[in-house]
Amino acid sequence: MPDREHCLALDAADPLREFRDEFVLPEGIVYLVGNSLGALPRRTAERVRQAVEDEWGRELVGGWNHAGWYTQPLTLGDRLAPLIGAGPGQVVVGNTTSVAIHQAVSAALRLRPDRRVIVSDAANFPTDHYIVQGLARTLGGYEVRDLAEGRFDDAAVVLLSEVDYRTGARQDVPEVTARVHAAGALIVWDLCHSVGAMEVDVSGADFAVGCTYKYLNAGPGAPAFLYVNPRHLADAENALSGWNGHAEPFAFEPDYRPAEGIRRFAVGTPHVLSFAALDAALDIWERVPMARVRAKSMALTSLFLDLVGDRLEVASPREPERRGSQVSLRHPDGYPVMRALIERGVHGDFRAPDILRFGFAPLYTRYVDVHDAAATLAEVLDKELWRDERYARRLPVT
Amino acid sequence: MPDREHCLALDAADPLREFRDEFVLPEGIVYLVGNSLGALPRRTAERVRQAVEDEWGRELVGGWNHAGWYTQPLTLGDRLAPLIGAGPGQVVVGNTTSVAIHQAVSAALRLRPDRRVIVSDAANFPTDHYIVQGLARTLGGYEVRDLAEGRFDDAAVVLLSEVDYRTGARQDVPEVTARVHAAGALIVWDLCHSVGAMEVDVSGADFAVGCTYKYLNAGPGAPAFLYVNPRHLADAENALSGWNGHAEPFAFEPDYRPAEGIRRFAVGTPHVLSFAALDAALDIWERVPMARVRAKSMALTSLFLDLVGDRLEVASPREPERRGSQVSLRHPDGYPVMRALIERGVHGDFRAPDILRFGFAPLYTRYVDVHDAAATLAEVLDKELWRDERYARRLPVT
Repeated sequence: MPDREHCLALDAADPLREFRDEFVLPEGIVYLVGNSLGALPRRTAERVRQAVEDEWGRELVGGWNHAGWYTQPLTLGDRLAPLIGAGPGQVVVGNTTSVAIHQAVSAALRLRPDRRVIVSDAANFPTDHYIVQGLARTLGGYEVRDLAEGRFDDAAVVLLSEVDYRTGARQDVPEVTARVHAAGALIVWDLCHSVGAMEVDVSGADFAVGCTYKYLNAGPGAPAFLYVNPRHLADAENALSGWNGHAEPFAFEPDYRPAEGIRRFAVGTPHVLSFAALDAALDIWERVPMARVRAKSMALTSLFLDLVGDRLEVASPREPERRGSQVSLRHPDGYPVMRALIERGVHGDFRAPDILRFGFAPLYTRYVDVHDAAATLAEVLDKELWRDERYARRLPVT
Repeated sequence: MPDREHCLALDAADPLREFRDEFVLPEGIVYLVGNSLGALPRRTAERVRQAVEDEWGRELVGGWNHAGWYTQPLTLGDRLAPLIGAGPGQVVVGNTTSVAIHQAVSAALRLRPDRRVIVSDAANFPTDHYIVQGLARTLGGYEVRDLAEGRFDDAAVVLLSEVDYRTGARQDVPEVTARVHAAGALIVWDLCHSVGAMEVDVSGADFAVGCTYKYLNAGPGAPAFLYVNPRHLADAENALSGWNGHAEPFAFEPDYRPAEGIRRFAVGTPHVLSFAALDAALDIWERVPMARVRAKSMALTSLFLDLVGDRLEVASPREPERRGSQVSLRHPDGYPVMRALIERGVHGDFRAPDILRFGFAPLYTRYVDVHDAAATLAEVLDKELWRDERYARRLPVT
């Protein structure tokens, strides 16, 4: 079993070690929730200050031209594109993942007007399934079928997450995409839990969505992104046909006329301050060798599983290739266990009914952090420290 | 005709004069585009810095509980509510106005399932009309009828702006609401160009939406708001049924179950950094006597019209009560005229085909600014300074 010294040696030899200095990480904690909200990059505060004081404060409405606000949904999309195997002109940023899912699934349904089934994974992050349920209800006449039923030969669209938020299980994107296409359906991939944690390639898919506040570190409520395969760009329709997706937003024409290309999937006025934080986060990603991120991610999650041993049931796949960058463990009293861990400086999170989640963001998580987290978990479990009654009280956000 | 000295005296006696000190206003310009993007409040930079460094940077994912991110869509909604005549638990903030319009009109249509007509004003700000067109196309079987046709006896829903973005003409909200209701239709008010410029009261309406980046000064792309009359809250459905509108977002249940009350109209993860700027802006609004804002607004727009005289055709109503806080003038070469004005420090904007718009934000626009703007406009017109060829070149955002 690797000891602490060994982990420190792994950190010293880590080719990604310099990236940790790019982040603000509070002293005395091991932060293993980067799969929920990524840490603050050091450069972000200044970039956001610029957006507030130099762009808004000085340029005022002139910022639309002079600070590039008008083009940011596309320029930031182009910068993000390589992280998901996409090219320029294929990704637009803005809104939330929920809204982007609505746009993608709506557009896919219109491209398969002869079919009336939407397949979604009830084990998906709930917003995916909820949005599809709302869309089916709005449209009427559609069936939302759970993936577990296993049948999509009559599906119009299949919505899946590359990495399951709860277990961390990873789908084989090319293989599943091919199966869905063979069934005559379109596929929408949710990349929230994979982008920034591994090499992602959705170039064979029809649509993809994701958020930028997890592994990408663009801040709480950072803009989502929407990818549309170029083969659909001429025909795909944006159900949320807001003015920013118009061919000439500033012509103020009475009728909607979609922009050419990916811009038609822009909706309303972009959230400029949130975009600034994404801009700063992407400055880092442009220098990151993603193959090394994935290699380190697999090493970190494997190390954690080794160190935890058989203390808890493992909800994540044992094969590192089949995992995202998280490890999920089961405990019937998972909530107080996690509270006890957090009080001891090890921050993971709890997902009902019994999942302890630990996310490993390879840019700033060290091998020694994994060691210390596992040691603390062992202590909390072995000494039953979680039985303290103050850990039972639920916070609003768990 | 009031001269400059007289305007300075008006400023000295202005009961709102101290509010100007709350804003960052670049030296040497007269900013008359607060109806498009409000100026930066001095307190905002520090509030946004807090959100970035103290909340995100230090609390990390704990910010959802400890920094109030989870409740902000509602707490900020409650703080905004008095500005539109609404009460607590009736307003949610988030997303863009375009998305909020989609939510409001979708919900209204489901409340009037027996009707198939949506009335919208083609002279509305385009996103209103575009979103309704997209929604009708998505749903199928709906007619989008222009308000100019004058008939809404068979309408399910009528979508109108309180103040027209182009001309500044103001609707009589109670009177129009009553007429729409008498016809058996529901009404959705767009308050983008009235909120923060006058006393707004939508308490008789069914739904209302608006942005916070114009007169409210919450920054470029600041969150929109959505008001739902309490009489509809039990039955109204959110077509964008994302996880933040779920009864228990963190229970991660497989099926969507709407929250009680206005929270069901929340959608995805809130844009926390943009919310921070709204939070700072609302700190100011809590101290503003809105009746004085309206009185000053009418005085400013009337003064401008008096000073401009008959140099240009006036597109705005002559009666101050029927105007918003803007004055629109027509000129066949409006674009180069506006460019010439901006080069001389008077910032208005141009709306095709021939509208020069001048917005007067009563919290920071002075009477002497109105004087100087009118004097510069007179000079540009009288000396035909706008004929310089460099003013003809169009910028992407006009």
